[in-house]
Amino acid sequence: MEDKNEKLHNLRHSLAHLMAAAVLELYPETKTTIGPVIEDGFYYDFEFSSPISDKDLPKIEKKMKEILKSWKEFSHEEKTEKEAKEFFQDNEYKIELINDISDKKEKITFYTCGNFTDLCRGGHLENPTKEIKDGCFKLDRVAGAYWRGDEKNKMLTRIYGLAFETKEELEKYLNQREEAKKRDHRKLGKELDLFHIDEKVGSGLPLWHPRGAMLWRIIEDFWYGEHIKNGYDLVRSPHIGNRILWETSGHWGFYNASMYPPIEVGQTLEEKQQNKKAEISEEYLLKPMNCPFHVQIFKDTPKSYRDLPVRWAECGTVYRFEKKGELSGLTRVRGFTQDDAHIICRKDQVENELKKVIDFILFIYKAFGFDIGTVKVFLSLRDPENKNKYAGNDTGWNFTEEVLRKIATEKKLDFTEEKGEAAFYGPKLDFKIKDALGRLWQCSTLQFDFNLPERFDITFTNQKGEQERTYMLHRALFGSFERFIGLLIEHYAGAFPLWLSPVQVKILPISEEKHLDYAREIFKNLKENNIRVELDESSESLSKKIRNAKMQKIPYLIVIGDKEKESKKLTIESRNNEKIENISVEEFSTKLKKEIEEKK
Amino acid sequence: MEDKNEKLHNLRHSLAHLMAAAVLELYPETKTTIGPVIEDGFYYDFEFSSPISDKDLPKIEKKMKEILKSWKEFSHEEKTEKEAKEFFQDNEYKIELINDISDKKEKITFYTCGNFTDLCRGGHLENPTKEIKDGCFKLDRVAGAYWRGDEKNKMLTRIYGLAFETKEELEKYLNQREEAKKRDHRKLGKELDLFHIDEKVGSGLPLWHPRGAMLWRIIEDFWYGEHIKNGYDLVRSPHIGNRILWETSGHWGFYNASMYPPIEVGQTLEEKQQNKKAEISEEYLLKPMNCPFHVQIFKDTPKSYRDLPVRWAECGTVYRFEKKGELSGLTRVRGFTQDDAHIICRKDQVENELKKVIDFILFIYKAFGFDIGTVKVFLSLRDPENKNKYAGNDTGWNFTEEVLRKIATEKKLDFTEEKGEAAFYGPKLDFKIKDALGRLWQCSTLQFDFNLPERFDITFTNQKGEQERTYMLHRALFGSFERFIGLLIEHYAGAFPLWLSPVQVKILPISEEKHLDYAREIFKNLKENNIRVELDESSESLSKKIRNAKMQKIPYLIVIGDKEKESKKLTIESRNNEKIENISVEEFSTKLKKEIEEKK
Repeated sequence: MEDKNEKLHNLRHSLAHLMAAAVLELYPETKTTIGPVIEDGFYYDFEFSSPISDKDLPKIEKKMKEILKSWKEFSHEEKTEKEAKEFFQDNEYKIELINDISDKKEKITFYTCGNFTDLCRGGHLENPTKEIKDGCFKLDRVAGAYWRGDEKNKMLTRIYGLAFETKEELEKYLNQREEAKKRDHRKLGKELDLFHIDEKVGSGLPLWHPRGAMLWRIIEDFWYGEHIKNGYDLVRSPHIGNRILWETSGHWGFYNASMYPPIEVGQTLEEKQQNKKAEISEEYLLKPMNCPFHVQIFKDTPKSYRDLPVRWAECGTVYRFEKKGELSGLTRVRGFTQDDAHIICRKDQVENELKKVIDFILFIYKAFGFDIGTVKVFLSLRDPENKNKYAGNDTGWNFTEEVLRKIATEKKLDFTEEKGEAAFYGPKLDFKIKDALGRLWQCSTLQFDFNLPERFDITFTNQKGEQERTYMLHRALFGSFERFIGLLIEHYAGAFPLWLSPVQVKILPISEEKHLDYAREIFKNLKENNIRVELDESSESLSKKIRNAKMQKIPYLIVIGDKEKESKKLTIESRNNEKIENISVEEFSTKLKKEIEEKK
Repeated sequence: MEDKNEKLHNLRHSLAHLMAAAVLELYPETKTTIGPVIEDGFYYDFEFSSPISDKDLPKIEKKMKEILKSWKEFSHEEKTEKEAKEFFQDNEYKIELINDISDKKEKITFYTCGNFTDLCRGGHLENPTKEIKDGCFKLDRVAGAYWRGDEKNKMLTRIYGLAFETKEELEKYLNQREEAKKRDHRKLGKELDLFHIDEKVGSGLPLWHPRGAMLWRIIEDFWYGEHIKNGYDLVRSPHIGNRILWETSGHWGFYNASMYPPIEVGQTLEEKQQNKKAEISEEYLLKPMNCPFHVQIFKDTPKSYRDLPVRWAECGTVYRFEKKGELSGLTRVRGFTQDDAHIICRKDQVENELKKVIDFILFIYKAFGFDIGTVKVFLSLRDPENKNKYAGNDTGWNFTEEVLRKIATEKKLDFTEEKGEAAFYGPKLDFKIKDALGRLWQCSTLQFDFNLPERFDITFTNQKGEQERTYMLHRALFGSFERFIGLLIEHYAGAFPLWLSPVQVKILPISEEKHLDYAREIFKNLKENNIRVELDESSESLSKKIRNAKMQKIPYLIVIGDKEKESKKLTIESRNNEKIENISVEEFSTKLKKEIEEKK
């Protein structure tokens, strides 16, 4: 694995040199700067004397291929600072780099291949001509980039290249990238009219349109139903809480940076205008998590060993202040709805509760069409060298880490242990699932918490009549609704299975005049059968209506024309272009219900 | 009606005099102050020389009855300021009142009956002895009250009396009050373990316990289902929005006082500590209503006349900063969930939309067990003398007021027109429903809005291809979930119909050892049939188990003993003490499902 990575790195690094050589041959006025390897290839930043664009890339690529023929080997030489500066005397960027190397008392080395020499630390192919396979690289795009990433510096021109060991690998990458672009939930969110993010409302605060809100409701309904079946109870909590609550929980302190600042109430308008503190005031905070509220519900009445376990679930919308630059569609937002639950139990119940949660998680993945064989699990443990930075005690940590390991093994999870990766409050299991493109998405989490039970003094009366500390588990199956819906959109490329489709059937009358009445009858019939059906009443042509409906990835289209009206039989076209003819509305209804039931 | 009211007023006023006379005979050191008539009787504020309590009330009442025998008529006399002050020379309260009357250049009058004379404006019975019926009044309670309601003044002792024309009316009132106390949703909320309000979390921010959250979910599910049937779509919006949004809507301005102050983001900790404004900042506000978000969803894509009407519903939790002293249980809160919807439509659709909403409102009342014959409706119109204080124009107002009146008449609503009661943004219909005790509760509302369509410039492309202003309706059926659940608790005195009961059946095994296993079988069976069932696994005696379950108003109890275990037939006891014997679990399940279906 290491070798393959090193070889790929050297390939990409050699290509960065090759690109710089080609650029200098084509644009001799150009100043070279730096050219590192990146995830899918390489780039090189240049100062061009006149701007270039994506249109110039084929020319550069062609030149690279020409030069490559003569690139048989890299040679290198150590240089003194003076020699190096002389060589790059007109290039202030290289001079700056040479100064940095000298300051660090490191060796200055030049690498040469063909006619091109560059300041470089090495790491190239032995024989580029031989080792760089036909069609294994491609120049990708031109972008602006500040020298050293600092916006106070000059803007340079960056050329990105893609490179893999073989042509096939490059093509696979390009296809996958193309596919990922098509599936981008931000793009599909717009096309399918699911949601939008409105700068007037606020960054990272999605607004859900009717189809998106319906998708959400379908998922939520399913989620609730399964939670009831699995012995959970629901609870509900507000979106703000007095700062005292967050001081008790400890979030106000170590978690400040991720929270929206407090809302100070009690301040008069005058005090506000004069920036004065209110005489009598309270501060409220938008909740970044639901836990302290659930704890307060637990503590409202004393609990006995017979009352445990409690399993309390809430789809609670929480708010965290992520940096604007880090926000992205539904996957990084500022307001998101955790499908949260807390399990508060006795020590002797922990193992059974963990098993149940893991079964539940895997059940949910299956229900939403993920291959549970590809689920990756991470067991985060504390850093045994730094025990004092964690809440809880040795006994608790040893017990919970051991039981997590035991259950993960028993349940045959594909898990990796990560020492030092646990939160300060307890060890955890994180679950990542693979989507249809093979990309991993962080999803479920199952975490012990030693912090809140201590801080809120959560206890129950045990069989001996003594107060005993409870165990507490946080868990989320989806993680958040927003993120999970983002994942579903990309996983299904917007073509949700029937049970999840916000619109399951669209009826397309051929002629408004002749077929609309009958189309309305069919519409009414299906709606009464709880099918999510829409009727296209636009004045578009049939082919346009079909195109629109297929773009919206609606599973079934019913075309109503003379034939259908007379025969009282339907013609159905699926989004996959399958046709069903001569079916009665009752038969079609039954077929749909069966398919919904089977979650196909 | 007027006469009856005046008579009752005079009766109560005379009783206030009579009570003061009795107090002075029993406690001659007492200073009298004022004694007005109130909703259910009267009170009088005294300065006693030593404190009295509720225990002293029977003695005072007895004395009143004694004195009453000699109270044949009230006489009155006009006094000069000097005469009046001489009479009350040791009573600084009366002196203050006399000064006030003089300042206003009003007449000073003394009224006398029996041996008691008081400063008074009149309004008494002609012959108290004859007109005050046996048992028609009752001293109620003692409370503290500041002189003139100002906490800077001395604390006086207030004695409240209840008084009605007849003994029967008083008894009816007392019974009803007793019943209302038993039904108080704050009391039942605790007994039924539905919710609590936690000062650590914040005033007016209820936390919903499992049973309360289940009740909520049942109502919400029903609500959503009916909305889908009625052609609504769902939308979802966040709980905060950029201040810009609220400036556009106009809420930031005229509605400030009811909103939580802004959350200023971007301020660094240093700026915060030094009370400095942030260099770059945004302000977010907790939403006091959902409308502007729905408007932004509407405006995300251009709309044509064919896209209208849109009917967009959201159970959106909003936050309004009510004064602490005004908060009360679930009926006055700071965070509440509106069962909100907005209808955006063309003028030619308004009438039909109104009809549909009114039918929907009445359907919902019926479904929740209210008598729609007792619904009172208020049509709020603008003040025609003050047209300039309203958004919108004459044409719009005339049309919408007229159409509301027309539809209210057609739908045979029992409605009252209230001029000048409309909000500045449009006319509305408010619906009040009567609960089981005959008390009116503000519930649904149906409001036109001329403000938001103007401020957000909401338009659609009409058939001529021109941009045309839409009509906009706000409506809520429940008003808010919190308030409506409060009402339901009091209406049903906590004994919810089966379909609403958070726990529908409780299984009570007689012996833990002998019957628990079989009880678990029954539990599993009913749960698989989607019955909300609980199993009492406590070690209490059967009679205690039954008592607990009945206090929780659980509709059906299943007692499992030897007989039931052997015969495989159940014995059911309902909360109304009806018994069903020898029924199989399947038969019982079917019976329950039927009852749930029928919403009885």
